[in-house]
Amino acid sequence: MTSSVLQYIIEAQAKYARCIDDDRLEEWPSLFHGPCLYRITTASNYRDGLEAGIVFANSRGMLTDRVSALREANIYERQTYRHILGQPSILSEDGAKVRSETSFLVARILQDGDTSIYATGRYFDVYEIADRSAQLQERTVVCDSSRIDTLLALPL
Amino acid sequence: MTSSVLQYIIEAQAKYARCIDDDRLEEWPSLFHGPCLYRITTASNYRDGLEAGIVFANSRGMLTDRVSALREANIYERQTYRHILGQPSILSEDGAKVRSETSFLVARILQDGDTSIYATGRYFDVYEIADRSAQLQERTVVCDSSRIDTLLALPL
Amino acid sequence: MTSSVLQYIIEAQAKYARCIDDDRLEEWPSLFHGPCLYRITTASNYRDGLEAGIVFANSRGMLTDRVSALREANIYERQTYRHILGQPSILSEDGAKVRSETSFLVARILQDGDTSIYATGRYFDVYEIADRSAQLQERTVVCDSSRIDTLLALPL
Repeated sequence: MTSSVLQYIIEAQAKYARCIDDDRLEEWPSLFHGPCLYRITTASNYRDGLEAGIVFANSRGMLTDRVSALREANIYERQTYRHILGQPSILSEDGAKVRSETSFLVARILQDGDTSIYATGRYFDVYEIADRSAQLQERTVVCDSSRIDTLLALPL
Repeated sequence: MTSSVLQYIIEAQAKYARCIDDDRLEEWPSLFHGPCLYRITTASNYRDGLEAGIVFANSRGMLTDRVSALREANIYERQTYRHILGQPSILSEDGAKVRSETSFLVARILQDGDTSIYATGRYFDVYEIADRSAQLQERTVVCDSSRIDTLLALPL
Repeated sequence: MTSSVLQYIIEAQAKYARCIDDDRLEEWPSLFHGPCLYRITTASNYRDGLEAGIVFANSRGMLTDRVSALREANIYERQTYRHILGQPSILSEDGAKVRSETSFLVARILQDGDTSIYATGRYFDVYEIADRSAQLQERTVVCDSSRIDTLLALPL
């Protein structure tokens, strides 16, 4: 592995986190490249090899629809996120395709200022390294807790 | 951008965080170079372009005064912080002057051991790269929550 | 310092955190090399130079015993950890031996899904750099809080 691959992934993940935390949700689908796969599941489901998760989307259109729904539904409950990410571990490299695992903690800040841990877990990502950047193709979000707010108001 | 610039900033930020978390507040003002600007504001004020914030200091003397006040006021309420920082994103480079954005989470540990999230947000920093290090010139702390403890017992 | 030393330490720390967070505790002792020293203490004890801590182990055998005890004791209370680490600061380099300090936050996820901050603090580590990797020889975990769950169900 070249250290630049790791750096590209770190930059892509920081850009992703800032997109959500800055409430620029409409840009979120464009952060996925190629076929696009995004899903959220729990650690116990993931361990048991269960496909069924909390969220499943395999096209940018589905992500866009999700953002639209969130915008309509969340008028009455303003909240923001703050992503804190660990350093990614490279799991495998196959040509330009790189798989990584990254720990995350997301804090949620409610309208009244109350701040709490919203979710912790791991990102299992697939990137295509091209043009001196890491292009996200797949993200599987594995939440540590099995008690995830089913509304999942914002993307993880 | 050279990767060393990023590394210099990471080192400067770690040094800053350790200074606070190790309770060496008297060294804190010396971490600022040049004109020195330090302020704390909320995300909503920052979004609206409001200058007025929670804390404003544009000289090392003001920072020193702040530390003195904290030392006198906080005898009765011991607490410590723990900063957890994300990787900085470089926003712009203009010669030796570099602007970066970094997510943070600060946990607060009270005397009785109780630990909670004290603040989350972003650092908007301006550094001068010189002598193989990043010298902090300006730090704007943008807190996600609008409900910040007005005492702000320790610097962020 | 070469940047690769820092990268080796980051990788070793990520591997360590994943071992715990993935509940592969039986592999944990093998992450220590050479004489092996592992201890957990509080910030106040550490500041006062007290040797006595919460946990003390100076052999892999003691770590293995600890894991066995945890496996027997914790049948009734399932929980997982999520480590979020800051970037390590290199404190000193003496040949292949490197000392570092790293801030951590560990979230605990209980069986019912409840997530909270379990511990924050610093790792003081000693590594031997060999074979393009950082081999952990000593880890002193200094917890910020003096009120640590004495069961300390999982390693930090």
